[in-house]
Amino acid sequence: ANDVKEYGNYFGMTLLDRRSDKRTDSEWLSKKQGHPTTVYILFSNLSPLVTLGGGIESSQQPEVKLCRLHYKDVEQCMNQTEECTLIFLGVELQFQMNQLPACNGRVVLDDEEDGLVAWFALSIDSASAEKFKQKHEDCYFLHPPMPALLQLPEKEAGVVAQARSVLAWHSRYRFCPTCGSATKIEEGGYKKTCLKEDCPSLQGVHNTSYPRVDPVVIMQVIHPDGNHCLLGRQKRFPPGMFTCLAGFVEPGETIEDAVRREVEEEAGIKVGHVQYFSCQPWPMPSSLMIGCLAVAVSTEIKVDKNEIEDARWFTREQVVEVLIKGNQRSFFVPPSRAIAHQLIKHWIGMNANL
Amino acid sequence: ANDVKEYGNYFGMTLLDRRSDKRTDSEWLSKKQGHPTTVYILFSNLSPLVTLGGGIESSQQPEVKLCRLHYKDVEQCMNQTEECTLIFLGVELQFQMNQLPACNGRVVLDDEEDGLVAWFALSIDSASAEKFKQKHEDCYFLHPPMPALLQLPEKEAGVVAQARSVLAWHSRYRFCPTCGSATKIEEGGYKKTCLKEDCPSLQGVHNTSYPRVDPVVIMQVIHPDGNHCLLGRQKRFPPGMFTCLAGFVEPGETIEDAVRREVEEEAGIKVGHVQYFSCQPWPMPSSLMIGCLAVAVSTEIKVDKNEIEDARWFTREQVVEVLIKGNQRSFFVPPSRAIAHQLIKHWIGMNANL
Ligand SMILES: Nc1ncnc2c1ncn2[C@@H]1O[C@H](COP(=O)(O)O)[C@@H](O)[C@H]1O
Ligand SMILES: Nc1ncnc2c1ncn2[C@@H]1O[C@H](COP(=O)(O)O)[C@@H](O)[C@H]1O
Repeated sequence: ANDVKEYGNYFGMTLLDRRSDKRTDSEWLSKKQGHPTTVYILFSNLSPLVTLGGGIESSQQPEVKLCRLHYKDVEQCMNQTEECTLIFLGVELQFQMNQLPACNGRVVLDDEEDGLVAWFALSIDSASAEKFKQKHEDCYFLHPPMPALLQLPEKEAGVVAQARSVLAWHSRYRFCPTCGSATKIEEGGYKKTCLKEDCPSLQGVHNTSYPRVDPVVIMQVIHPDGNHCLLGRQKRFPPGMFTCLAGFVEPGETIEDAVRREVEEEAGIKVGHVQYFSCQPWPMPSSLMIGCLAVAVSTEIKVDKNEIEDARWFTREQVVEVLIKGNQRSFFVPPSRAIAHQLIKHWIGMNANL
Repeated sequence: ANDVKEYGNYFGMTLLDRRSDKRTDSEWLSKKQGHPTTVYILFSNLSPLVTLGGGIESSQQPEVKLCRLHYKDVEQCMNQTEECTLIFLGVELQFQMNQLPACNGRVVLDDEEDGLVAWFALSIDSASAEKFKQKHEDCYFLHPPMPALLQLPEKEAGVVAQARSVLAWHSRYRFCPTCGSATKIEEGGYKKTCLKEDCPSLQGVHNTSYPRVDPVVIMQVIHPDGNHCLLGRQKRFPPGMFTCLAGFVEPGETIEDAVRREVEEEAGIKVGHVQYFSCQPWPMPSSLMIGCLAVAVSTEIKVDKNEIEDARWFTREQVVEVLIKGNQRSFFVPPSRAIAHQLIKHWIGMNANL
């Protein structure tokens, strides 16, 4: 929060304190599940249930908000279907006295009541989702995820990033990868344990039991002259969109070497100095985008057509035209909520004589 | 290489260019497998085969080196056992003419011959490993991995980090996590594909098919007065060892927030500003240690005994005594090849009045 570079980190801001200590407290978890202040957010096929907020007239885009449901809204769903997955997301950061249940007009904080407002994500099957939409006409599931997820209020986006990543892990990692047996979910949704008694995954601690996070490097490559940057595009991008190069960090590789390898592989450009800029969770399905500035030491582009469709040097003026002046005739870059945008914008501001 | 902070990055330096473009070129791969210049390194139970190098007298520690084997050494092993896993690691960075096969005394570079020296990692079962050791008396498998792996020459450590991480993935991820079926290895060992025809993991690109890399934050926490740092210890550490706090990055979390969460969880200390320092691959089994400096904004330590055994503020003088002067009477820190050591050392150098 007090780091300038973290400002505007979409998917990285959150309303919640994860309170991982509570994940093993099953009594607390089950008490909170039925508590009237507890907030449930619903997912179907990894898409969150949202509704249109007010202020549609005034803002440019319709305001999309998470549907914050309560136990009474989801109780039936949870008891009916086997197929639902429940994840404990945390408790609200702001502890507000007025969220405590009032008793005889006075707020009571007894032993049973810690006043913490818990949040859960609940993933339901398609049939239940269909029923749910019929009952709540103003709600719908945000699909496809991109670019729709970028319309959420910033702090809700962080909650969705956390929930969607963990749910995506459960949906793809149903079976024990060590022995192929079925698994059970534990610790509020953050652990998966093999059900086969003598499975080697049960001896010691293994990453097979924990959610996966894939580190990805994304880099603003700066020309040796300091006044051009390298942007590329993949075939599946909308026409005209260019952005920073990116790629998965490989096992046994540093962030800096991953940057150098990817830039050389994709565009044939050699990179020297690499500097970390900032990072952004990216829940498609569970990446950590690590943003870097990278100084090129060669200039001749050789595009690897298997990986990208095009890569070019753009002048500072061209980028300013698009990013600041909003003239997107020749090309455009991702929206401001993407880390690529922040990286490109940061570069424009570096030693600039605008 | 030209980044000072990357200097001394054990497990992060390598002899090899990964040449990921060759992973899908099965013809090239199979030609290289049988090529006389190709280097094989052997693993059994995730431990590499090593030998003692020269210079035992002169250096403080015996010099341990990877056994660099050739096709003729491993041919039998590879054909005999079903259980072996082969990973393409890359080609040697230095292209040396004298590594080309000579023909009639003249070096020939024909169409068939690109002069690249390929490296493979070969994992064999325990029985084959036993036989192998009997034949090669001067070789042994480096076990247990820690701290033994820290004895390798720096550039070989990077090769082992890469190989060990990918092999660890194959050993724990034998079955398709989406459907529980058997899988087959592809792309030189970097891809795993489900053998069940209609498995959803075969539709589109999913991380289930690719090696796992677990991002971990490790942080030098600086006291608000600037002259103390926070070091802790886990029960399983050797007595007297203290080091930087660390923990896994969770889904939907930034590096900076992971630092804040872990420090608060483990030691009850609140952190404000966080700054990336450098990173280090850590092949136990496949982590990426992301080193940060973290400025505390509170000072009262409250140790979570479930996570760590102890955490204390150490003065700059205490740390200098241990790290620079080598007086390890009161406590000690990890060896210089661990990123924790580099972080602590960096802090000592910051605004120091030694
Ligand atoms: N990917 C992961 N691999 C292993 N442990 C994990 C992972 N993610 C979270 N954990 C938790 O971290 C603990 C081990 O942390 P450490 O003591 O730092 O090795 C385990 O007991 C797990 O509760
Ligand atoms: N963890 C991973 N998840 C998905 N794709 C991966 C992963 N690691 C490597 N890859 C490769 O990266 C490609 C997708 O990269 P991208 O186009 O950047 O999404 C895939 O076709 C894979 O070859």
